[in-house]
Amino acid sequence: MPEKLKGIVPPVITPLTRDGRIDCRGLKKLLEHILAGGVHGLFILGTTGEGPVLGYELQKKMIGETCAIVGGRVPILAGISAAAMNDSVKLAEIARENGAFGAVAAPPYYFSLGEPELIDYYETLVRKIPLPLFLYNMPAMTKVCLKPSTVIRLAGVPGIIGYKDSSGSMPDLHEVLLALRGRDDFSIFVGPEELLGEAVLFGADGGVSGGANLNPCLFVSMYEAAARGDIPEMRRLQEQIYRQRKLYFIGHYPSSIVKGIKCSLSLRNICSEYLAEPFHFFEEKERNEVRKVLETLPIL
Amino acid sequence: MPEKLKGIVPPVITPLTRDGRIDCRGLKKLLEHILAGGVHGLFILGTTGEGPVLGYELQKKMIGETCAIVGGRVPILAGISAAAMNDSVKLAEIARENGAFGAVAAPPYYFSLGEPELIDYYETLVRKIPLPLFLYNMPAMTKVCLKPSTVIRLAGVPGIIGYKDSSGSMPDLHEVLLALRGRDDFSIFVGPEELLGEAVLFGADGGVSGGANLNPCLFVSMYEAAARGDIPEMRRLQEQIYRQRKLYFIGHYPSSIVKGIKCSLSLRNICSEYLAEPFHFFEEKERNEVRKVLETLPIL
Amino acid sequence: MPEKLKGIVPPVITPLTRDGRIDCRGLKKLLEHILAGGVHGLFILGTTGEGPVLGYELQKKMIGETCAIVGGRVPILAGISAAAMNDSVKLAEIARENGAFGAVAAPPYYFSLGEPELIDYYETLVRKIPLPLFLYNMPAMTKVCLKPSTVIRLAGVPGIIGYKDSSGSMPDLHEVLLALRGRDDFSIFVGPEELLGEAVLFGADGGVSGGANLNPCLFVSMYEAAARGDIPEMRRLQEQIYRQRKLYFIGHYPSSIVKGIKCSLSLRNICSEYLAEPFHFFEEKERNEVRKVLETLPIL
Amino acid sequence: MPEKLKGIVPPVITPLTRDGRIDCRGLKKLLEHILAGGVHGLFILGTTGEGPVLGYELQKKMIGETCAIVGGRVPILAGISAAAMNDSVKLAEIARENGAFGAVAAPPYYFSLGEPELIDYYETLVRKIPLPLFLYNMPAMTKVCLKPSTVIRLAGVPGIIGYKDSSGSMPDLHEVLLALRGRDDFSIFVGPEELLGEAVLFGADGGVSGGANLNPCLFVSMYEAAARGDIPEMRRLQEQIYRQRKLYFIGHYPSSIVKGIKCSLSLRNICSEYLAEPFHFFEEKERNEVRKVLETLPIL
Repeated sequence: MPEKLKGIVPPVITPLTRDGRIDCRGLKKLLEHILAGGVHGLFILGTTGEGPVLGYELQKKMIGETCAIVGGRVPILAGISAAAMNDSVKLAEIARENGAFGAVAAPPYYFSLGEPELIDYYETLVRKIPLPLFLYNMPAMTKVCLKPSTVIRLAGVPGIIGYKDSSGSMPDLHEVLLALRGRDDFSIFVGPEELLGEAVLFGADGGVSGGANLNPCLFVSMYEAAARGDIPEMRRLQEQIYRQRKLYFIGHYPSSIVKGIKCSLSLRNICSEYLAEPFHFFEEKERNEVRKVLETLPIL
Repeated sequence: MPEKLKGIVPPVITPLTRDGRIDCRGLKKLLEHILAGGVHGLFILGTTGEGPVLGYELQKKMIGETCAIVGGRVPILAGISAAAMNDSVKLAEIARENGAFGAVAAPPYYFSLGEPELIDYYETLVRKIPLPLFLYNMPAMTKVCLKPSTVIRLAGVPGIIGYKDSSGSMPDLHEVLLALRGRDDFSIFVGPEELLGEAVLFGADGGVSGGANLNPCLFVSMYEAAARGDIPEMRRLQEQIYRQRKLYFIGHYPSSIVKGIKCSLSLRNICSEYLAEPFHFFEEKERNEVRKVLETLPIL
Repeated sequence: MPEKLKGIVPPVITPLTRDGRIDCRGLKKLLEHILAGGVHGLFILGTTGEGPVLGYELQKKMIGETCAIVGGRVPILAGISAAAMNDSVKLAEIARENGAFGAVAAPPYYFSLGEPELIDYYETLVRKIPLPLFLYNMPAMTKVCLKPSTVIRLAGVPGIIGYKDSSGSMPDLHEVLLALRGRDDFSIFVGPEELLGEAVLFGADGGVSGGANLNPCLFVSMYEAAARGDIPEMRRLQEQIYRQRKLYFIGHYPSSIVKGIKCSLSLRNICSEYLAEPFHFFEEKERNEVRKVLETLPIL
Repeated sequence: MPEKLKGIVPPVITPLTRDGRIDCRGLKKLLEHILAGGVHGLFILGTTGEGPVLGYELQKKMIGETCAIVGGRVPILAGISAAAMNDSVKLAEIARENGAFGAVAAPPYYFSLGEPELIDYYETLVRKIPLPLFLYNMPAMTKVCLKPSTVIRLAGVPGIIGYKDSSGSMPDLHEVLLALRGRDDFSIFVGPEELLGEAVLFGADGGVSGGANLNPCLFVSMYEAAARGDIPEMRRLQEQIYRQRKLYFIGHYPSSIVKGIKCSLSLRNICSEYLAEPFHFFEEKERNEVRKVLETLPIL
């Protein structure tokens, strides 16, 4: 296992069967597809992975299956975000038992925490779990934004080894990157795939890019281009990322990104398209829009 | 058990020990205190009850203890709100086993549901649980507002027997009240205690008033004054409600209401003041502000 | 002129011609229609009156025309809200010259003011203008909410004689009403017409009800019913208010209320339907929806 | 005058005297200071320039004074944003008479426009004004965000020659940059100075960087480093930009950026520190915080 995680760590979607169980065959096919793209790790049970929507039994199963299939080929991060700290601790224990590399936790998302409570939350959680911890900033879901000063302070807490920023705010991310430059024991990942290039160029360690479920090579290439400062290549890849990204704006749901990715993977015969209840998958009308976008993308 | 629930159904706070277990002695004292005020039901594991923050084990324990202590003296509603439908179903089953009257569910609060998914969510949930269901509108926590048209439509689904509106929007509540006038099989409750009087005056069946943890009589009196249209008495009681309400604005946390109530109950020797981790209880400075407000209130 | 303004003070829409001038004939017809309904005052250049959208020349003209037509039959309040205090002062001077009773100002709406700046804003403005001032809380437009404590403090400033609350928050309005009970020199008006009944019941002095452009009697009746505590009549009128209110939700624009009222007045041959550029008026599809709602309403 | 504006176009602050007039001596000193830094244009009456807060007379004066002092050395863009289109047209005419290069308009900021109305707004405005027009996306002030598809569509309207994006959303800006690549007659500027480097790297034409009021060279250097793809230099300059940016977070007002810049310029003896009424300038406590930040910055 690496000292510090770097590169592309896709937020793996959770393939489900029509009756709400893990689609194990699809999961295997999906993981092999992603790993073949040269990614550097995997993040399961995140937002794209519908983590909090699955419920305890499915979360447990997803951790077990993924770790078994991957068999140590890349490090696995497990999302443990929950409304209750107790439930997060239980998930982290399961992740540890199955050999995960680390845990990733967004702030509790029912009641919002006050600022000092946020600090306390992470300090307490990291003491209670048997895995190193990544901070996860996801204000669109949690209603609370981790401020740069909070992240910088928490980066000094033993056991907290990284930060995933899905806020979409580059001004805030720059502030964190500048303050933590040179830290070879703390990983900074950017969530939105549109920001992968510039984030890495200014010092981020990598990206948790949802689109890597579909085309992992594209994001590995962008990561490498940014790491070596190849600007013309970055511009070229950015265009491809934007062509694929059209998949995320179909149907205008808060969950359109997950729906677009699952529908695409289903059309490409990788895994099933069902979402956790009561989220709908794309039916014919929207599936046709997905098809049209897929036609503009390279066959992988 | 009544056909249709009416009156004051306090959202019971969850007394906790310092090490995060249910404070059973405190819970017993609290429930007897509330019941002595003449309330018409109890709502446990709501927002004021820190339901989603407790985690599965504490939620289960809280249902069991409360039902045992109350012993059928009033109907009990159990909050089953969760980010995952599976977890809500499990809670409803436990509530049923313990003799609860109904279940109360806010929309899943991680991913927001699209409009047709909201309808589906409730239609599916009510089929899966063994208890009648109350809709729970709590946009400040769930990021999604149940529109009047959604509530009106869902009020026609078998098994859905009531609505608790904590949106604070009287224009929306009026719309629901007007559309469902005369329905003797569907209960409409208002959340914010400041709106209890006018809501009942215009046809609501009662209130889920957080302040009734502290002074249940006050809210029972307001309910009765509104039910008989006694406006001078309503104005007098409204003033008292506002005097007590000052407890909710200390410290300026999203969780200040729970903190203010728990601190007050602790100062009045009813139960402990701890919140579920990692929420802080009020320390000396804020406790003194609570004391000052309590001095302006009647001894109960 | 009354010591303290009370009753129904409709926010008069501004009738415009196709080429963007005041529709003076329509304005005269509209004002006579409203006055015939027994209203207690008129508020021009508010939000419903498109005040800030008109620009200086039209605002000036609207003040002059309205004052001339009304000829002192009821007191006139003139909206002077602007992004720049200088512009507000100029409008207040024009209003004074034309005989207006008072000026109404929302906080400046480009940059939001900090809390102490809000206090300063109103203290400075009232010294600079030659008319008594009403505070105007309109957070949906100004991005800043006047807190009850701010309103209560400003109610003690000489020259500030009233408050119009369009926040829609009854909990906040109750706080102001309780704190300023018995003040016979300060008027408290509620904006949203859905809240007129309960606001007056709990002590408000009246309402600035947009629907009174169309049916002034309806709101005068609700005001009177609430003032005498006639609850059955209030419930009956509330239903009528909600039937008419369907006009405000056509087309789903932020400006739907103005559009719905203007379209209705045009269909009833009272005045033109044009809005200030670049706002669109309702075309055939939406006009038909308006027609359908109008058919359910009494002929006035 | 250039065919297409490129480079650094600072949003000039508006120096004011204590009694609310233009501080003409300060303005001259400020403009010479900025021009000496090698900027490529000037943008007056924007958000940083307090444009909408000044009122008509001061706006007119500011246009006249600035154009006279600059005397054609660089192109001048004049902000004409207003709540009423009529007022925007008047400002554009004054700007034209004084020799400005172009006008910049955010959407009307009282009522929000619906989507088709936004398109209409700009199409109508550009026909009515005697200057080429820049679109100005400033959702924090206007409550409406120009979507990439709206900007892309409007970029095809004759007379609309550029876009200033102050939304802070790099994902949206990338979408616009990719769609309008190769357009040598349309300028794309980024507002937030933290994003200048990456925006130019991915194809933006320059930045409207508030910090250039204080240190114009810094932003000209970043623009040039990005234009030639000098990543190490960009990282070095980014750090300096963040050191200076601390000036914007003092006092936590919505207007803290303007206050921090004005206070700094005053401490450096360039111009006065007063803001348009009723905005407060920084007093001793905050001024000391500004002093401390300034001590970490190079003497210019």
